[in-house]
Amino acid sequence: MSRIGDVVIAQGGGPTAVINASLLGIVREATGKIETRSKIWGARGGILGVLKNQYADLRKPTDELWKRIVESPGAALGSCRKMLSAEEATGAVRTLREKDVRYFFYIGGNDSMDTALKMNRAALDLRYEMVCCGIPKTIDNDLPHTDHCPGFGSAARYIAQSAADLGADVRSLPTPVSILEVMGRDAGWLTAATLLARSHPDDAPHLIYVPELPLASEKFLTDVQKVYDRLGWVVVAVSEGVKDEDGKSWGARRNETIMDGFGHPMTGDVAATLASLVTSKLGLRARSEKPGLLGRSSAVMVSLSDRREAEEVGTFGASWAMQGNTGFMATIERQPGAAYRVTYGTAPLETVANQTRLLPLEYVTENHNDIKEEYRAYAEPLAGGPLEPHARLEDETSDRANFTKEGH
Amino acid sequence: MSRIGDVVIAQGGGPTAVINASLLGIVREATGKIETRSKIWGARGGILGVLKNQYADLRKPTDELWKRIVESPGAALGSCRKMLSAEEATGAVRTLREKDVRYFFYIGGNDSMDTALKMNRAALDLRYEMVCCGIPKTIDNDLPHTDHCPGFGSAARYIAQSAADLGADVRSLPTPVSILEVMGRDAGWLTAATLLARSHPDDAPHLIYVPELPLASEKFLTDVQKVYDRLGWVVVAVSEGVKDEDGKSWGARRNETIMDGFGHPMTGDVAATLASLVTSKLGLRARSEKPGLLGRSSAVMVSLSDRREAEEVGTFGASWAMQGNTGFMATIERQPGAAYRVTYGTAPLETVANQTRLLPLEYVTENHNDIKEEYRAYAEPLAGGPLEPHARLEDETSDRANFTKEGH
Repeated sequence: MSRIGDVVIAQGGGPTAVINASLLGIVREATGKIETRSKIWGARGGILGVLKNQYADLRKPTDELWKRIVESPGAALGSCRKMLSAEEATGAVRTLREKDVRYFFYIGGNDSMDTALKMNRAALDLRYEMVCCGIPKTIDNDLPHTDHCPGFGSAARYIAQSAADLGADVRSLPTPVSILEVMGRDAGWLTAATLLARSHPDDAPHLIYVPELPLASEKFLTDVQKVYDRLGWVVVAVSEGVKDEDGKSWGARRNETIMDGFGHPMTGDVAATLASLVTSKLGLRARSEKPGLLGRSSAVMVSLSDRREAEEVGTFGASWAMQGNTGFMATIERQPGAAYRVTYGTAPLETVANQTRLLPLEYVTENHNDIKEEYRAYAEPLAGGPLEPHARLEDETSDRANFTKEGH
Repeated sequence: MSRIGDVVIAQGGGPTAVINASLLGIVREATGKIETRSKIWGARGGILGVLKNQYADLRKPTDELWKRIVESPGAALGSCRKMLSAEEATGAVRTLREKDVRYFFYIGGNDSMDTALKMNRAALDLRYEMVCCGIPKTIDNDLPHTDHCPGFGSAARYIAQSAADLGADVRSLPTPVSILEVMGRDAGWLTAATLLARSHPDDAPHLIYVPELPLASEKFLTDVQKVYDRLGWVVVAVSEGVKDEDGKSWGARRNETIMDGFGHPMTGDVAATLASLVTSKLGLRARSEKPGLLGRSSAVMVSLSDRREAEEVGTFGASWAMQGNTGFMATIERQPGAAYRVTYGTAPLETVANQTRLLPLEYVTENHNDIKEEYRAYAEPLAGGPLEPHARLEDETSDRANFTKEGH
């Protein structure tokens, strides 16, 4: 029996390379379950689209356009960063009630789950029967009660591939120090994924710093010097959220000590700050690379398993919602066994909203400057499998083949 | 008839994603032309490998390893930044003469062509018959007498794809200003290639600044404000070498006005400096993305035509050298006609060494903040053809579809 009532879908927070696959998953499932005269609306610019009554008709795109939308980064509907108040949620539900919307989906991270929760509470308070469902999405991978979050795997593949590429470059023309800044203010999942760049023990990155642990200047400089003394080149992966021994962000540190030419504090770039520290304190030429937003928007380097799961978790969430369940976020559950396999489940929105799941410290080495190999088993399937390792000429040639006439 | 004498190949300067394809081109051609007992040596770390007598045996890698080497970024032999003196060149030629090396190939950019030239002069002065051949390589695309340089096309594809991805992201969640820093200190070819990111007139990047023209603060701020007022979001592509109205690099500007916490001048990041300027002067939140070395080391985003030409120009150079010609750089010549087609030629090393071919100002728009569409015809074939445009939902949906109950 087809369900009656319209559907609204919105996308919140920072986009990912696969956020539109989740949108398609919901649209396809809803299309099959609701009446043909019911509408499937996409709110423009996240919850702001609901407040402003701005929508796109999601029954309109052709299969061909959907294919292209799924392969495009950014949020197709537009997104927003908006913390909804309880009053605003009540107002938003009222506007949806006027239009007979019975299903509300929010694709997003921690803040978006808070919005979905508030919408659900407002609907219950108004005794308006409307299903509220959250679909997980964050490159930070920091939502609880799900093995991982759609978007993370693709960002992990991008940054691991970037670290491997950077390593091949810096190794061949020693810089000698390059510091790669990785997104993720609070959680180190993504920074830790640069481990996947390594296929030999001395491959880049040689040092990995996550925001879960403080990074003291002296410790950092000692770490860099040690790698340099051993190899002659150093690649460091560092989270944009890493803090110093006083719990102060390395970006903020710079903000306080450095003013721009106009007397305003500078925007903090953690890798640039650390590179400057290396150059000034160790006398080693150091540079920084900060792909920034490119780290969440590369469709070329997307993880195919991530994209598939992003769609499937959307499909599952819509299916569960169409069965009349509400107030939940769809989750991904990794199944035991050697082969990577997932099923889908749910968690109450109360237990995920505004929660941050940090990287477990068991994954960090004892000297706090690297990630243990155990993490590979967790992250590699999400990133779409192992990267193609870069070739090394010395695998088959003699590195020290000093040749002589006699040698001919 | 097989040629007698050994071959030495070296790679100089900053690597590219296709530099190893040129290496393979030379090795394959030489293998077919020289005696089987003659050696093909790869100097480790550019000309330094010759000075230090450190080589790899390039007959050893299997076809399978060569395939992987060609697909790996970085210089497989290692590279260096070393300006050779005439005396050092004489010394280097003497060591090669002792070993009966008759062919010297240097894959590199402007500085490397200077090295090849000095080696050729030293050989002539010593009356030692040794062919010296340069194979072009630079992402900066600034060698004269060649239509373009291997390595440029891949870097162009990478940065254009990155600008398109960044545009899709920033458009969907307005930042509102993002500044993308592009490699290339003197020549704007690569920065100009971000034009290829655009498939709609309002696509990113909205402003493109090349180092051939000064960029004054007031002009820059006015440009950004205008785009912001029109679209509500702005993506800027800027060369790392861009200079202000006094001819001072924007990075150096920062260096002089800003000291780090230890009293040393900061490393200048041009995009970060400009982002800070936008935030402080226009009150618009601005961020910067600086992929840096990632821009020349991505094998995933390589231009296939660039990789093919990199190999072919190596093959051609080796073939020309094996015919007894010396003192030349191999060149790429674009043939007239609608379809993109190239042949290979040569230019005397004297005419290319230490020369910089800047972006012709005809490609820059009159208001100095964008690149003309004419540049697309030049750059797009080198980047391996057009990028897949990112989808826009509004292509088929109504952007302002305010829905009502009655509308069902």
